[in-house]
Amino acid sequence: MIIPALVDYVYANPDWLVFVIAAALTLFIGVLLVLANRSAQLKFSLRQAFLMTTLSWIILPGFAAMPFMLADPNISYTDAYFEAMSGITTTGSTVMSGLDLMPPGLLLWRGVLQWLGGLGIIIMALTILPMLRVGGMQMFKVEAFETQEKVVPRAASLASWLVTIYVALTLICGLSLVWAGMSPLDATVHAMTTIATGGYSTKDASVGFFRSAAVDWIIVVGMIVGAIPFLLFVQVVRGRPLALFRDTQVHWFLGTVLFAVLVVAWWLWDEGGMSVLDALRYAAFNTISVMTGTGYATADYWQWGGVVGGAPVAVLFCLMFVGGCAGSTSCGIKVFRFQILGAMAAIQLRRLLQPHGVFIPHYNKKPIQEGVAEAVMAFFFMYALSVAFLAMLLGMTGLDHVTAISGSATAISNVGPGLGDVIGPAGNFSTLPDTAKWLLSAGMLMGRLELFTVLVLFVPRFWRD
Amino acid sequence: MIIPALVDYVYANPDWLVFVIAAALTLFIGVLLVLANRSAQLKFSLRQAFLMTTLSWIILPGFAAMPFMLADPNISYTDAYFEAMSGITTTGSTVMSGLDLMPPGLLLWRGVLQWLGGLGIIIMALTILPMLRVGGMQMFKVEAFETQEKVVPRAASLASWLVTIYVALTLICGLSLVWAGMSPLDATVHAMTTIATGGYSTKDASVGFFRSAAVDWIIVVGMIVGAIPFLLFVQVVRGRPLALFRDTQVHWFLGTVLFAVLVVAWWLWDEGGMSVLDALRYAAFNTISVMTGTGYATADYWQWGGVVGGAPVAVLFCLMFVGGCAGSTSCGIKVFRFQILGAMAAIQLRRLLQPHGVFIPHYNKKPIQEGVAEAVMAFFFMYALSVAFLAMLLGMTGLDHVTAISGSATAISNVGPGLGDVIGPAGNFSTLPDTAKWLLSAGMLMGRLELFTVLVLFVPRFWRD
Ligand SMILES: [K+]
Ligand SMILES: [K+]
Repeated sequence: MIIPALVDYVYANPDWLVFVIAAALTLFIGVLLVLANRSAQLKFSLRQAFLMTTLSWIILPGFAAMPFMLADPNISYTDAYFEAMSGITTTGSTVMSGLDLMPPGLLLWRGVLQWLGGLGIIIMALTILPMLRVGGMQMFKVEAFETQEKVVPRAASLASWLVTIYVALTLICGLSLVWAGMSPLDATVHAMTTIATGGYSTKDASVGFFRSAAVDWIIVVGMIVGAIPFLLFVQVVRGRPLALFRDTQVHWFLGTVLFAVLVVAWWLWDEGGMSVLDALRYAAFNTISVMTGTGYATADYWQWGGVVGGAPVAVLFCLMFVGGCAGSTSCGIKVFRFQILGAMAAIQLRRLLQPHGVFIPHYNKKPIQEGVAEAVMAFFFMYALSVAFLAMLLGMTGLDHVTAISGSATAISNVGPGLGDVIGPAGNFSTLPDTAKWLLSAGMLMGRLELFTVLVLFVPRFWRD
Repeated sequence: MIIPALVDYVYANPDWLVFVIAAALTLFIGVLLVLANRSAQLKFSLRQAFLMTTLSWIILPGFAAMPFMLADPNISYTDAYFEAMSGITTTGSTVMSGLDLMPPGLLLWRGVLQWLGGLGIIIMALTILPMLRVGGMQMFKVEAFETQEKVVPRAASLASWLVTIYVALTLICGLSLVWAGMSPLDATVHAMTTIATGGYSTKDASVGFFRSAAVDWIIVVGMIVGAIPFLLFVQVVRGRPLALFRDTQVHWFLGTVLFAVLVVAWWLWDEGGMSVLDALRYAAFNTISVMTGTGYATADYWQWGGVVGGAPVAVLFCLMFVGGCAGSTSCGIKVFRFQILGAMAAIQLRRLLQPHGVFIPHYNKKPIQEGVAEAVMAFFFMYALSVAFLAMLLGMTGLDHVTAISGSATAISNVGPGLGDVIGPAGNFSTLPDTAKWLLSAGMLMGRLELFTVLVLFVPRFWRD
């Protein structure tokens, strides 16, 4: 599906660069696959792994930015790099407007970037990140799954299973969208950016353009699928259909989604005067879009506050930080970290009543490994600190405080749109100063690589000896 | 100073209720002192301590609200309770306007409430809170200080030292303000609410009314004093002048203050076109007012964003959560918790490079006691969760999202003014719906009692057996 489309694009814009870039990206995925297959035998040092991971995610957007510059001679390199970084990290913040009139090849390129970025992060979440032990990701070592469940294939075939399932889910989503009335190009791009929880659209008005309940609901399902650990899908297709329903991260994710959608829908119905079906549709679409960090919009949801009070806006703003499940394409703090933080807080409360009691925190009915709770808590703290720090830096470039704070949050959480008139769902990042765009690019990278992968490079000890 | 003023008030408004309430509050402080003297021998159960602490802080504002109702027959009980809770918790959010024309007795009553609330929390921070072990406060057990330093008097005389120093500092602040040109009443109220980092003023325009650099700088010093652990002052007057300069919490507090003031001042000077002295004065006053959670204003600082970009506003919004030092009258997350969180995050970074290394977090050059780091991290998480949750509830009462989110933050951090037109430094809480006022009162209480003291009452286990 992608290869022919790319070929079309290359025919229409016969430029060798596109080949080179596509090749580089494919190579990147290839390297990830090789790493996946070999992770057991691999013996390169931790420092090399940290450095290679971060560097590859800095350099790739540099190449991926080229097609944007070729397509539009007026675009600056800053804008092109921002757009590419936003694509590869599946953030979906855009500096481009007039999407409806843009050459199909470019729209496709944006979709492909997010789709490859999403695939890249799924594979990384099962291979490199647990090895690096960033933010408690060691909990998701495949070995751990293997010994306990025995249904996960060996690492060698696991990666190919992941790719197959990723492609299959994208195909199903795309075909459903064609069935709902989208053109093949629109369906392809939206399918790719839905499963990748990326959020790039082919229209300035985002998915709101299509004014179709069917499209909305298909994408709702697609975004939820994109925010669920893909390893579970592998277990399902390999004959363990219940794996999906036994995972506590999935329970909490779906529970939170359901609760938030109902609260927002009730508000839109009771105060906003929508019909029940419309309220459910708009609530589900926009809430799930924000929580999974996809960033599509069918309404300028930050304006809901003016009509129906601040509750839905406050709910959405908080959900932005939550994100989906670890091991999926979505970003944010992630549901499992909130579960662990909640377990730790509950233990604190019990310890207040029994100061000498011994309490062991559990996750998925097993005791949490040593070091994981501390790592998760440190992650949460660094997340808050990073959002605050980036917001200050953005404020120093002259942005107003709503744009600075929400821009920082949306970049680090890889959501896409911010809050307010400038970068809200109805706005665009193009008017920001160049410095702000580079800062936001750095924020997206940090958020996508779970903060610590990047931060560790700033520890002097990293470079010593 | 207070007793005669109270007598004057009672003469002008001969009402027995004022006596009763003043007596109740004095009794409360008295009980705290008794607890302080006996903490070693005391044998009542932990549950009783939690329940008594929370209940007393719920019931006292109920009485303290009476004078407001007597003075103004039109004020609702909700407003009066809100004002009293805001006073006792040293928050300083107000529903009253027309302060400039209000009877002196009422202005004095507001000041006395904050002053007693500030004294109450200092004594609690050295007696009850460490015993309850909430949010890592066990680090500040007086016994710990005693064994290591040997210069702290026994608990019996410690409390009287604290009261003496608290009175003396208020006197010095008040006399300085009289010297700077304030009337005795204004000076008394402002001295009391400065040292208590409370923020109630005698003017609608807050300290900005006086248009005096001398007043501003005196209050700057007073707010800093109010945000420093009072135990250190006891050590200083008992012949250990260096104690103040050896405490790492004080270092970090003053360092943060200095850095933030310089950033904001530079901005006001460079972008806002102020003279260097004016920039320093406005930056110091408003930054320190927000960070220590005092909540005075000499400018509507949230409007600075419109003139000079979002940086100062973002800095101030973040500082609101930081607060002062533990053991002072200020609230917020507190500096020592950020130090511990920072130490834990630093260890995480080192552990990424040496997965099998053993790292022990330190505070004030000593290893952090077992359980403290977890308690601090859980506190940080619950703080974020509480602010988010209260913001949602406030949004449900119909507030816009800026008012809901900043109102939640300002209540739980006991700062006072929020952000935006409604509850900003130039605004007032009187127009909020009653439900919102009760929610905010609950938020102030939770923030003041370090969250867990209140939250533990909602654990079912608390009420069992
Ligand atoms: K996104
Ligand atoms: K205050």
